[in-house]
Amino acid sequence: MKVLITDHPWPDLVLERTICEQAGHELIAGPIDVLPREAIDDLVAEHQPHAIMCCWAPVSERAINAPRDLRIVARLGVGLDNIAIAAATARGAWVTNVPDYCVEEVSDHVIAMLLARWRGIVDFDRRTKQGEWNPASARLVRTRNMTVGLIGYGRIGRMTARKLSQGFGARVLATSPTLLEEHVIGTEIAPGVLAATVELIQHEADAIVLHLPLTATNHHMIDGAFLAACRRKPMLINVSRGGLVDNDALVSALDAGLLSGAALDVVEGEPSPPASLVGRPDVIVTPHIAFTSDASLAEVRTRCTEDVVRVLRGDKPLHPCNAPALRR
Amino acid sequence: MKVLITDHPWPDLVLERTICEQAGHELIAGPIDVLPREAIDDLVAEHQPHAIMCCWAPVSERAINAPRDLRIVARLGVGLDNIAIAAATARGAWVTNVPDYCVEEVSDHVIAMLLARWRGIVDFDRRTKQGEWNPASARLVRTRNMTVGLIGYGRIGRMTARKLSQGFGARVLATSPTLLEEHVIGTEIAPGVLAATVELIQHEADAIVLHLPLTATNHHMIDGAFLAACRRKPMLINVSRGGLVDNDALVSALDAGLLSGAALDVVEGEPSPPASLVGRPDVIVTPHIAFTSDASLAEVRTRCTEDVVRVLRGDKPLHPCNAPALRR
Repeated sequence: MKVLITDHPWPDLVLERTICEQAGHELIAGPIDVLPREAIDDLVAEHQPHAIMCCWAPVSERAINAPRDLRIVARLGVGLDNIAIAAATARGAWVTNVPDYCVEEVSDHVIAMLLARWRGIVDFDRRTKQGEWNPASARLVRTRNMTVGLIGYGRIGRMTARKLSQGFGARVLATSPTLLEEHVIGTEIAPGVLAATVELIQHEADAIVLHLPLTATNHHMIDGAFLAACRRKPMLINVSRGGLVDNDALVSALDAGLLSGAALDVVEGEPSPPASLVGRPDVIVTPHIAFTSDASLAEVRTRCTEDVVRVLRGDKPLHPCNAPALRR
Repeated sequence: MKVLITDHPWPDLVLERTICEQAGHELIAGPIDVLPREAIDDLVAEHQPHAIMCCWAPVSERAINAPRDLRIVARLGVGLDNIAIAAATARGAWVTNVPDYCVEEVSDHVIAMLLARWRGIVDFDRRTKQGEWNPASARLVRTRNMTVGLIGYGRIGRMTARKLSQGFGARVLATSPTLLEEHVIGTEIAPGVLAATVELIQHEADAIVLHLPLTATNHHMIDGAFLAACRRKPMLINVSRGGLVDNDALVSALDAGLLSGAALDVVEGEPSPPASLVGRPDVIVTPHIAFTSDASLAEVRTRCTEDVVRVLRGDKPLHPCNAPALRR
């Protein structure tokens, strides 16, 4: 059977190809970079795959309905916002992801961005390379004295909380709808981690980290009103999805001194995010790499392809994200 | 009595002046920047202080012997390599430091530098600000899979070890002469922290952190021979003293691919370190600020001045670093 991989932000496909071919399937490779929706639709229609594997590329309803016999759309990652899940469910195709391969990486990346700001690493490296040596200008903070608010408390959020509280002794406030169903506000849900509302986080956090998926209802949840309600000039960290943050509102809030800075691994408009945002010295930016490491990439590529092979031989996938209708 | 402060890498002296004046003493302020040895000698001879407070400025034998009635040389910091301790001891003056005010800050700084490299923060921020967006070029690592070697295992080294092992699950190898007197090599001396030799660290560490004082015998301990014996292309981190590292040997080792990079908060030659070293993209540099935060500066300034006041009223200091002869 045919497996089409729409995009792959790593240089080769050795792992994916080996696993597919050992199971007797053919792997058809799309480009490294992400094609526009129409081009992906055409690619799928042309190759008529039984399985679609995708990283960032949009897999639309049209793409999902194009193949005669589609069994699975497999996400090389966690988030599913680029896949028309309902269309797959309706035609009886599985949608899968790899939910927990980059928990260490993304939480490491959050701490890296927090400390890069709080210890002045990016800023002073730049200035020192320009010939300056000015320790008296340092305005740094002690991590143990900081309060960090986490919006979203899934696998990755819990690991970020653990590293901050158990590693550094920071105070962590965490919120999510599920968490507030289960815990009273102010309860210690893990050592050093308190259940909180978004409002409490806005009032008390020195840094706010977004650890939640992008859904149909939370686009631009970080808008002007959200930022205006922050009391302690927090640093904003986004390692989830660019669409959660209104870029214009963020620039205005930074200009107005409502935030002490931002660190963004994801930006609405990527791969060409607005220079007016990412060019600022008070904004640290990385190009959507928080999930990557030698270890996590090997894991996501292997486990995603293994679920494809599992479905193509008629078994249930290990990481189903839908309950497909009978296949048509 | 007169208190001379030779240098102060922070903008004002409000804390120091308030504590001195409340005890009835006069504070004489040297400059923010560090004067050369001869200028310090002259400053001390001119003002005839009863107490000398210093941050980085060299306090020589000549300076120490110049005042008619010197009671204390108080270091605004931990290391004592800029003070002629023996001269103070011989003439009956205390030498003091503040041994534990920046344990959190320096260990935070080490993790910040490690993660800045391992998560690509400095490099990708620079490239993304230049208009690039290239996630496929990321070559990052999972901190949990890393082995970090600590040379020196005092208060700060133990805190770095704790953060790395308990926060991130990294494997830590630690060495110091004292540690190896007390523990068999390979013993777990704290959760996730093993007693090691320098040689074991050279063989197994993915990062090597210098956490030891500069002494008469360890100048340039990180030389060509040390670096040539490293097996896993470690990253070298120096947050202790620049003189521990031979800059030329470090540049050669980076050129030869013996190291994956370096992160230096201290550099021999500061405040004008060689551009051939600090200008490299594989070297992260900060200008001797690992010890600073709002909290640590308030603490070191207050506690150092309080020890001066204590000695000037005839009491023993809280943090003596010598056993002075009878005062002459």
